Amino acid sequence: MSAIDQLTAEFARLPGIGRKTALRLTYHLLKRPPEESRRLAEALLAVAEQVHPCSECGNLSETDPCSYCVSPQRDRTLICVVEEAADIGAIERTGAFRGLYHVLGGRLSPLEGIGPAELNLESLLTRVGGGSGVREVIVATNPGVEGEATALYLQKLLRPHGVRVTRPARGLPIGGALEYADGVTIAEAIAGRREI
Amino acid sequence: MSAIDQLTAEFARLPGIGRKTALRLTYHLLKRPPEESRRLAEALLAVAEQVHPCSECGNLSETDPCSYCVSPQRDRTLICVVEEAADIGAIERTGAFRGLYHVLGGRLSPLEGIGPAELNLESLLTRVGGGSGVREVIVATNPGVEGEATALYLQKLLRPHGVRVTRPARGLPIGGALEYADGVTIAEAIAGRREI
Repeated sequence: MSAIDQLTAEFARLPGIGRKTALRLTYHLLKRPPEESRRLAEALLAVAEQVHPCSECGNLSETDPCSYCVSPQRDRTLICVVEEAADIGAIERTGAFRGLYHVLGGRLSPLEGIGPAELNLESLLTRVGGGSGVREVIVATNPGVEGEATALYLQKLLRPHGVRVTRPARGLPIGGALEYADGVTIAEAIAGRREI
Repeated sequence: MSAIDQLTAEFARLPGIGRKTALRLTYHLLKRPPEESRRLAEALLAVAEQVHPCSECGNLSETDPCSYCVSPQRDRTLICVVEEAADIGAIERTGAFRGLYHVLGGRLSPLEGIGPAELNLESLLTRVGGGSGVREVIVATNPGVEGEATALYLQKLLRPHGVRVTRPARGLPIGGALEYADGVTIAEAIAGRREI
């Protein structure tokens, strides 16, 4: 396989990129100075080598623990649970939340074979457990059947630990993905969160 | 800038990829094994280092001259002129053409400041000139005002050399780009080419 075909095939493996878009990207880069391809390649290698899950919260970060977990400016009594690390960026950009995060790595989904054992739950229990000072857990899984089921499961799991378990206010469109919601909607949803 | 932000910024530089799509691609790769990012990085570096324009025809290739220019199976009396190297792939996939290629590197466009001096014309004249045996040049520039103007210009330029100058049959939709046309349309257009 030629270098051009190889690059096209790699682009086409990315989500939302078909064969023709992959070809267009490849030939776009071929028309630009080689430095542009190199910069993209180096950014990819940097991410592959330097970014790892935080051992505290599961956020993807170049440091361990991640910057949120070590920050003295964050409210350590409040943990926001999200499905994926990408969701943290969406919430941070609103500036509406100053607590800590916890990344589940997905949501309960019997159809996809994702049960409690596949999610990052044990470390959440450790973080919430005795003497941690955590008073509230906001379950910001995506709205929709599976996200709601995950939130209910977490509520039952965390209740014995005496923490308040809340859910961002409905305001996020059902079926939408948190990662793509606009900042105002996310901020309003966090401000209007309600007990499960 | 963190490695994640850096990669997102590099993705967002690609055509048709906005900030949210770039974020989605970055987090997609972060969820996959690092080998996937590395494979894409290596494909990019291979293209940046190994792919160069063919000194004969201007096609982008890992060898010089490119595989079409050295192939004994191609009809050396027939040259198909295209705007970009990407167009060659679109024509080759139809299997309807067995001649050689010549890449202009664009088309005449006074608005974008692209005149004859910016196109790969001198080497075309050399290839067509005395004793080369070239009998016909198919001008497969994209349909549309600028592509037609380029074809007319080439016809005037090449007429003194005694070669037939043809244009693929109308059949490609006006305003469309050859790179994205379907194979049957391209094949029919080449079979029904007509003298300018």
